Amino acid sequence: MATPPPARPHRLLPLSLGFFQGALLLFFAFFVTYDGPSARLEDASVVANQLYGTFPFFQDIQVMLVVGLGLLLTFLPRYGLSVLTHNFILFNFSTQWALVLQGLLHHFHHGQAHLDLHNVLAAEFAAVTVLISVGAVLGRTSLCQLLVVATSEVAFYLISEWVIITQLGVLDVGGTITIHVFSCYFGLGVSKAVFGAARQPAHPKETPTPHSDLQSLVGMLILWVFWPSFVAVLCQPGDAQHRAILNTLLAMSASAVTTVVASGLLEGDGKLSASHLQNGSLAGGVAIGAVANMAVPPVAALALGSLSAVACVLGFRFLTPLLMRKLTLQDQCGIHNLHGLPGILGAVASAVAVLVAPGDASRSHFSPVSPTGANASQVGRGQGRQALCQAGGLAVAVGASLLAGLLTGTALRLPCLARPPERLCFDDSLYFKSQAQAESPGLCGTTEEGALALKERV
Amino acid sequence: MATPPPARPHRLLPLSLGFFQGALLLFFAFFVTYDGPSARLEDASVVANQLYGTFPFFQDIQVMLVVGLGLLLTFLPRYGLSVLTHNFILFNFSTQWALVLQGLLHHFHHGQAHLDLHNVLAAEFAAVTVLISVGAVLGRTSLCQLLVVATSEVAFYLISEWVIITQLGVLDVGGTITIHVFSCYFGLGVSKAVFGAARQPAHPKETPTPHSDLQSLVGMLILWVFWPSFVAVLCQPGDAQHRAILNTLLAMSASAVTTVVASGLLEGDGKLSASHLQNGSLAGGVAIGAVANMAVPPVAALALGSLSAVACVLGFRFLTPLLMRKLTLQDQCGIHNLHGLPGILGAVASAVAVLVAPGDASRSHFSPVSPTGANASQVGRGQGRQALCQAGGLAVAVGASLLAGLLTGTALRLPCLARPPERLCFDDSLYFKSQAQAESPGLCGTTEEGALALKERV
Amino acid sequence: MATPPPARPHRLLPLSLGFFQGALLLFFAFFVTYDGPSARLEDASVVANQLYGTFPFFQDIQVMLVVGLGLLLTFLPRYGLSVLTHNFILFNFSTQWALVLQGLLHHFHHGQAHLDLHNVLAAEFAAVTVLISVGAVLGRTSLCQLLVVATSEVAFYLISEWVIITQLGVLDVGGTITIHVFSCYFGLGVSKAVFGAARQPAHPKETPTPHSDLQSLVGMLILWVFWPSFVAVLCQPGDAQHRAILNTLLAMSASAVTTVVASGLLEGDGKLSASHLQNGSLAGGVAIGAVANMAVPPVAALALGSLSAVACVLGFRFLTPLLMRKLTLQDQCGIHNLHGLPGILGAVASAVAVLVAPGDASRSHFSPVSPTGANASQVGRGQGRQALCQAGGLAVAVGASLLAGLLTGTALRLPCLARPPERLCFDDSLYFKSQAQAESPGLCGTTEEGALALKERV
Repeated sequence: MATPPPARPHRLLPLSLGFFQGALLLFFAFFVTYDGPSARLEDASVVANQLYGTFPFFQDIQVMLVVGLGLLLTFLPRYGLSVLTHNFILFNFSTQWALVLQGLLHHFHHGQAHLDLHNVLAAEFAAVTVLISVGAVLGRTSLCQLLVVATSEVAFYLISEWVIITQLGVLDVGGTITIHVFSCYFGLGVSKAVFGAARQPAHPKETPTPHSDLQSLVGMLILWVFWPSFVAVLCQPGDAQHRAILNTLLAMSASAVTTVVASGLLEGDGKLSASHLQNGSLAGGVAIGAVANMAVPPVAALALGSLSAVACVLGFRFLTPLLMRKLTLQDQCGIHNLHGLPGILGAVASAVAVLVAPGDASRSHFSPVSPTGANASQVGRGQGRQALCQAGGLAVAVGASLLAGLLTGTALRLPCLARPPERLCFDDSLYFKSQAQAESPGLCGTTEEGALALKERV
Repeated sequence: MATPPPARPHRLLPLSLGFFQGALLLFFAFFVTYDGPSARLEDASVVANQLYGTFPFFQDIQVMLVVGLGLLLTFLPRYGLSVLTHNFILFNFSTQWALVLQGLLHHFHHGQAHLDLHNVLAAEFAAVTVLISVGAVLGRTSLCQLLVVATSEVAFYLISEWVIITQLGVLDVGGTITIHVFSCYFGLGVSKAVFGAARQPAHPKETPTPHSDLQSLVGMLILWVFWPSFVAVLCQPGDAQHRAILNTLLAMSASAVTTVVASGLLEGDGKLSASHLQNGSLAGGVAIGAVANMAVPPVAALALGSLSAVACVLGFRFLTPLLMRKLTLQDQCGIHNLHGLPGILGAVASAVAVLVAPGDASRSHFSPVSPTGANASQVGRGQGRQALCQAGGLAVAVGASLLAGLLTGTALRLPCLARPPERLCFDDSLYFKSQAQAESPGLCGTTEEGALALKERV
Repeated sequence: MATPPPARPHRLLPLSLGFFQGALLLFFAFFVTYDGPSARLEDASVVANQLYGTFPFFQDIQVMLVVGLGLLLTFLPRYGLSVLTHNFILFNFSTQWALVLQGLLHHFHHGQAHLDLHNVLAAEFAAVTVLISVGAVLGRTSLCQLLVVATSEVAFYLISEWVIITQLGVLDVGGTITIHVFSCYFGLGVSKAVFGAARQPAHPKETPTPHSDLQSLVGMLILWVFWPSFVAVLCQPGDAQHRAILNTLLAMSASAVTTVVASGLLEGDGKLSASHLQNGSLAGGVAIGAVANMAVPPVAALALGSLSAVACVLGFRFLTPLLMRKLTLQDQCGIHNLHGLPGILGAVASAVAVLVAPGDASRSHFSPVSPTGANASQVGRGQGRQALCQAGGLAVAVGASLLAGLLTGTALRLPCLARPPERLCFDDSLYFKSQAQAESPGLCGTTEEGALALKERV
């Protein structure tokens, strides 16, 4: 592989994005329509009530993805503008691209794809996988590379989701397996392929400041608050949705407290680590997704939340350095600790929950009412077989995503997709004109830059 | 005109605001009541459902105006406390004042004005115009002056909205014409009148820092996420509201991506401009308002979003400097690029949409169900005539607001309403006691101030 | 009393929290269940509609408590990570503990406690009292001490709420008396007992910077926006809830404007104080809680909002220094001004509102439909008697909380619960590993620290 030249972002990014927007317009012009009035013979108040039942959840999820996740990533002190912007652009690009692929794959009836709020929601779920995966390579890759990741990952996600949910009949209302596990191993695959065996040295601009840690903490709190909406939005209205909300609340509350316990015990002097808090508190939300709407007792949600927080903190402390040492596997944001380990725990928990569920409950909860696409095949299916399916879904998610990620990462090494030079990694100046610098070029643009520069000199 | 003396804010502000609060209390005591129980013979569950249908939208809009818009304006690095506070006070003052005027103008039946959540919402829409307009003169005007702007603009807005919606029957569910175009040209009129032909020099405290740009970006993201609620809140529940939400989502998504394309192509080295992102990503939301609930195909929303983002970015790059050079027109926040150009695009799009709409659809969608006050006069009206009305509404909004703005701006030059001295422009110390400075007067209050002072000295 | 040794946080915190999590799991395993399917014979759409009526309010309240209140407390410039984290941990710990106690106290039917969203909401209301109270001792106490406060306060709150609402039949839908007054005097009691007669000197790290003031202002704005949800969530759906929302909106709007008036008149040169704005703007929301759903005219809400803002600002200017001088009573965040004075005003207003209410209205509004637990005893009760009850509730809240707070504060002086040494007060380094410091120990970790250190040296 050629060593990438120290290139700066150039016209490739705007030109390719512009080309995509044009193609999107053409596709929508010819193939996409809102549901015609003839298809909506129902009472207007029914339509309104359905909308009122979904829209607040939808808005919550948008806040999570655009504001919460964006802020969570601003722990890199000199890269805040870039991560917020990259997250925002990737979110929009991936959603649009998923709408196109969905239109091609699923909704091609009568020559026209019909668009409604649920399609958009499904497309945003596809976008989530991209936002998670890029966490593994954040700061050392260019936005062009990340757009290639998005293009590839959305397609692989839609296939993998179709296999896992529709074909295998896996129960996963909150996306534990289909979203979190899949995107984690996809991201790790990309990271392994793009960085190869070259160990990335610690970068001086990687270290969070108290201020960037605080911003990231605010992002975590926003995610924490709205997570129940993410898990419950696709549940059947009524008891199942109510239970999904409660289970998520319990799991995340247990995660928050347990993270403090685990972090305090691990660090020598009882102090906390900000990155443990930023991630561990959310681990319960990742893990609970696959069992949230099942008839599990409240204690199961609490236990799963605690367990996944412990796994996440231990992962940060031991597993990430180990993977780095043994496999030279770079995981910038620790997505394996937040999405991988808790996701696997959640998948295992869902298999156990299916096994131990009382027969009647299982029949009612595993019925084909799941709007994620569970077909009728699992009705009457034995509990053991359903548990096997859950395990099979996990295996498919891990295997397919690793393979697809490695493939995608290899493509990122194409010479036209140069990585940013080490000097400009984790630095907003790669993507943004600094107005202050433009005006007083001989002087550091801002205090923080000045102090960091000072520190580097010392 | 007398040159304004270098005055500091004095008791005029609290005294006049206090007088207003007293008058408000008197007005409410004598004239305003909640709907009496006799007026509410409906089932309690109907009332509750109406509330549940509106309240989440209402909360979203409040977040946009108070938190999102406030943060968006904090791109001025040393003026953050002031812009957040001014935005908050102007929002409250304008809403209260609009409630008073609404009570006087519209709701004076039986000697009492009735208050419900829809009145408050309408009053907040009036307040939005003020929050937008002051963006043109931000930082170089005193809060007293801005309150005069609010007093005048709310009154003119209510008249203009009555003419445009009720008399002309213009269709504008999202406020593209009545709110965005009106407030943009009102603000520009104020700016022209208050600054006259004196060109304002670039101020050292005007330049954003990476941190203030990031805060502003977070504000943009909050506005972006909740914008669908702003556009759709007044739509008829059911299909029209669903379509309004989807159209807004598509338009804003296209805006976000197209902004990156346009900004990247315009800036020489492919870098992005933070101010383009902060504004261009929202342009689609401004433009879509007038057509959001019409029976347009999805591609129209995407195209309108893309087009308005391009207009916004081009406006920042070429039009704002041009207006400054040729007309000495000051537009501090670029409201002409975010609200003016996309608003005009949206108005034109609504005329086109009306013209090309199929006959049946137009009859059902242009029926008098719009809660913004469209009367029955347009039922059966030809499509050509409705398109003319849309154009007429745009003309009224531009003309009336420019005139009213110029008038208002002239009043701001009264000697008792002195502008802040140049030295204290864009500076929180004009409005806020700095506790740090109070304690160690010989030393810069904060790091940032210190660094800026250093920079100024160098 | 022994002078506390200069201890650092140690394993006591994680160990005790870990023990609590284990006990919680055991309790939930044996005693808590979701409502069984047999208990839910209603139509699924009824369940769904109830959920859609509550869940958006619930999410709003979570944003307030976790994000808004957390940010409001970050006015301490070097303690931001700690206050956000402490607020978050106390919120989760207190909610869990309240769920346990509720399970023991109220819901012990048939050997199992049933859990639903309303239980969680009630538990979060108990947690609110803790989050408010700790404001009195913030920065000079350890997290261990705060957890002891939480353990004690949740228990006392549940008893006090039962006495005030269920036994006395006090009307207080927004928690003015049961939450705000109670938690204020509890916190002051704790502060008095823990600090004794030793006057705490002003700490150099107590002084807000413009940036920390801005963050705190954003927190205030988030609280301000969502406050109507907090007041109205427990109202009966329909007119009462609609009225509660409107009253809260009016009261808070009046508070915001009046705070500017009062602050501007009090400060010599017409400037504003950031801490007045951060607190005064919310005073109306505190005061309106007890009368929000009553049949009061809109002007009453406005007047109450204005009055409580004045009381809050005057409290900051005169009462807090006086209490400090005369009673050596430490009130770090000024909770007496934000929760105590407006709470008392609101309680008095509720007594007056009951007295002057027309007979019919009082009967309908004081009927036993209140979901906060008002029993049937007050139906037909005279208005004078109900007014007495309101006053009695206030007296119980003040007296019980002061006593309980003093008791709790005395326990905090146990040697095993050492306060942080003065040098490490208001400093994140007590709780968080500074990664920057770890890497370059000879140099200040961040700019802000550097500047502060510089300032201290000068």
